[in-house]
Amino acid sequence: MAVGDYSLPPLSPVAGVRIGVTSAGVKTPGRKDLVIFEIAKGAKVAAVFTRNKFCAAPVHIARRHLQQCAPEYLLINTGNANAGTGSRGLQAALVCCQHVANLVGCEYTAVLPFSTGVIGELLPTDTILGATADALAQLDDNHWLKAAEGIMTTDTRPKGASVTAVVSGEPITITGICKGAGMIKPDMATMLAYVATNASIAKELLQQLIKQAVELSFNRITVDSDTSTNDACLLIATGRTNVAEYSQIDDPLWQPFRQALNQLFLNLAQAIVRDAEGATKFIEVRVIHALTSADALEVAYTIAHSPLVKTAFFASDPNWGRILAAIGRSEVVALDVNRVSVWLGKLCIVENGERAADYEEQAGQQIMAEQEITICVDLSMGEICESVWTSDLSHEYVRINAEYRT
Amino acid sequence: MAVGDYSLPPLSPVAGVRIGVTSAGVKTPGRKDLVIFEIAKGAKVAAVFTRNKFCAAPVHIARRHLQQCAPEYLLINTGNANAGTGSRGLQAALVCCQHVANLVGCEYTAVLPFSTGVIGELLPTDTILGATADALAQLDDNHWLKAAEGIMTTDTRPKGASVTAVVSGEPITITGICKGAGMIKPDMATMLAYVATNASIAKELLQQLIKQAVELSFNRITVDSDTSTNDACLLIATGRTNVAEYSQIDDPLWQPFRQALNQLFLNLAQAIVRDAEGATKFIEVRVIHALTSADALEVAYTIAHSPLVKTAFFASDPNWGRILAAIGRSEVVALDVNRVSVWLGKLCIVENGERAADYEEQAGQQIMAEQEITICVDLSMGEICESVWTSDLSHEYVRINAEYRT
Repeated sequence: MAVGDYSLPPLSPVAGVRIGVTSAGVKTPGRKDLVIFEIAKGAKVAAVFTRNKFCAAPVHIARRHLQQCAPEYLLINTGNANAGTGSRGLQAALVCCQHVANLVGCEYTAVLPFSTGVIGELLPTDTILGATADALAQLDDNHWLKAAEGIMTTDTRPKGASVTAVVSGEPITITGICKGAGMIKPDMATMLAYVATNASIAKELLQQLIKQAVELSFNRITVDSDTSTNDACLLIATGRTNVAEYSQIDDPLWQPFRQALNQLFLNLAQAIVRDAEGATKFIEVRVIHALTSADALEVAYTIAHSPLVKTAFFASDPNWGRILAAIGRSEVVALDVNRVSVWLGKLCIVENGERAADYEEQAGQQIMAEQEITICVDLSMGEICESVWTSDLSHEYVRINAEYRT
Repeated sequence: MAVGDYSLPPLSPVAGVRIGVTSAGVKTPGRKDLVIFEIAKGAKVAAVFTRNKFCAAPVHIARRHLQQCAPEYLLINTGNANAGTGSRGLQAALVCCQHVANLVGCEYTAVLPFSTGVIGELLPTDTILGATADALAQLDDNHWLKAAEGIMTTDTRPKGASVTAVVSGEPITITGICKGAGMIKPDMATMLAYVATNASIAKELLQQLIKQAVELSFNRITVDSDTSTNDACLLIATGRTNVAEYSQIDDPLWQPFRQALNQLFLNLAQAIVRDAEGATKFIEVRVIHALTSADALEVAYTIAHSPLVKTAFFASDPNWGRILAAIGRSEVVALDVNRVSVWLGKLCIVENGERAADYEEQAGQQIMAEQEITICVDLSMGEICESVWTSDLSHEYVRINAEYRT
């Protein structure tokens, strides 16, 4: 299941990035599961990774390699997360990097490994090594869609976006893909996301840009409150443009680019929620008039994580009592329940902590029957507003996650 | 669904407590839904209530009345929570108390109201007032089982326990009942629990005893991480015994009683988890060798709340990667993942942060197929051990909560 029609827009190539995709057969024979990115020399790369302490072997290795030199290749497999695999997992990731390095003639530290799939099984390195040459033979700058397909696990559809921002009269391309449908409550990053631009961007600024974009996108979504061991998000700036380097974050010339970048990240993050495991609804939880951003996010996530709220959404049941109960148990010290109002779309259902005088259940049901719903909670405390995006909890979610390994 | 056979043991009467039960028809005609407890004069009563800020009208009123005089009557209805009902809800609860007071000839502040059921609908006071006289006419000290039935909502079976502790050679009775199956992550109390003893106990000590017993029982369980708006737990000491008053918590004469009381609370709390909405498994999550109790509980609850862990239990899938991922995202700053070990029952599945060398999937599956399972996580950090109890996440949970109001 997935919410709404989501037809992947055409994904524009980014000068300086080529992609090769093949089927190694890591888990399912014949399925695209091995993706290699080739990044032209001179490009800058920034990344954020999961904060899960049980992070996967490839996360350890990719972090280390990023500090040692500029990445030239990304090696991504699905079907196996190479997480919880200890020293043998680290060794397996290194063997794969070394193999790519041997084939292309670069340092093994210039190769970053990424894995996603089942946790706790040893990476089948032979299977991956055997398919690497084929993936390299496919390298092409038009393979973004194939790459979006090649990184899927329980995703039902590939996810990607392309935008063009005009900077100093020149078009700058940004293209990105991502994957993720379950174990989604990113903390610094999402499952896997790769975004590239031909802009020329100073390295420190690139890290600032990705942090900011992720904070407002992948760090604002949740499917099931579970933070993955393998989350990683990369931003590549190849510098293949005539526009001078972007080096100060608030440079007014680059504001259209920055805006477009943040919007693209948000599109990708929302695409994950729309394709969340078992999802039938796409829900924005917006908290307004909070004292602090932390308060707003605490209330929003408490609602977004509540299994009772999520099953009510699945049932299209405007059970606002469950929303109030979630707000009431959120850890916001100064909360005054008598000032809380709640809207479903444009319909006020709770006013000053109780059922709104004009509210009629039928009107609530009509909104709940829609596929895209916004809950807005007004705390009447301050000036801060935050949104998070989530999905409902359906039979299909239970089925997918009860059957995942079988 | 519910885990295992749970035949209610005989519930011994407690001298000084009489109970009347009737069908008012608050939600479902013919169902027992109105319970009145009569507490003999001279009894002491202590209580704990939900910390949910959106707490229900009866919680507000019961708290207030408890401060004003010794309770003589408890009035409990199911089918309607009288929560999120604002000033009209408070008024409705007061009207019910006043009505009981008129019928029996006591102060209305000597009546404590309790409600459980759907949130956000006005309490049908006429329905309740109309049935009160009948409930009073039924008063009998042998009605504990009926009361356990009369407070059920989505519970599939009544829950109660009786124990006898010998103090100074005299038998002291403790009998309790409780209800709860969903919206269970108590924070100071459970949904509803009423425990009475004929012991004579000093008032301050009674409050200490209930706090301690709740902390180790109802505050150690979770079904779905949602704290109810109506949680309440009462401990009544009628003093109908020849044994001198219990007034110092560590009085050695009373240790058998204290132990029996704590055990009874734990039995009641575990009965809720065994009857959790949709439950097919009863799971103890034990964390050992933690630095602090807070750390141990943080890890235990992160595992117990993870939808991915809970669906794996439903599927009898020893998916220990999900357990590791939950441990890894728990907020324990000093956690060293390389020292973590995990047991399923007596089977070591993770050693030093990775799959145990001897572990075979088949052995794990065998344990996961059982109805009662213990996960033990060894953090190898300190000396503290904590357990929480939870259930799995099944199709039935989604069905119950998607259909609850329809």
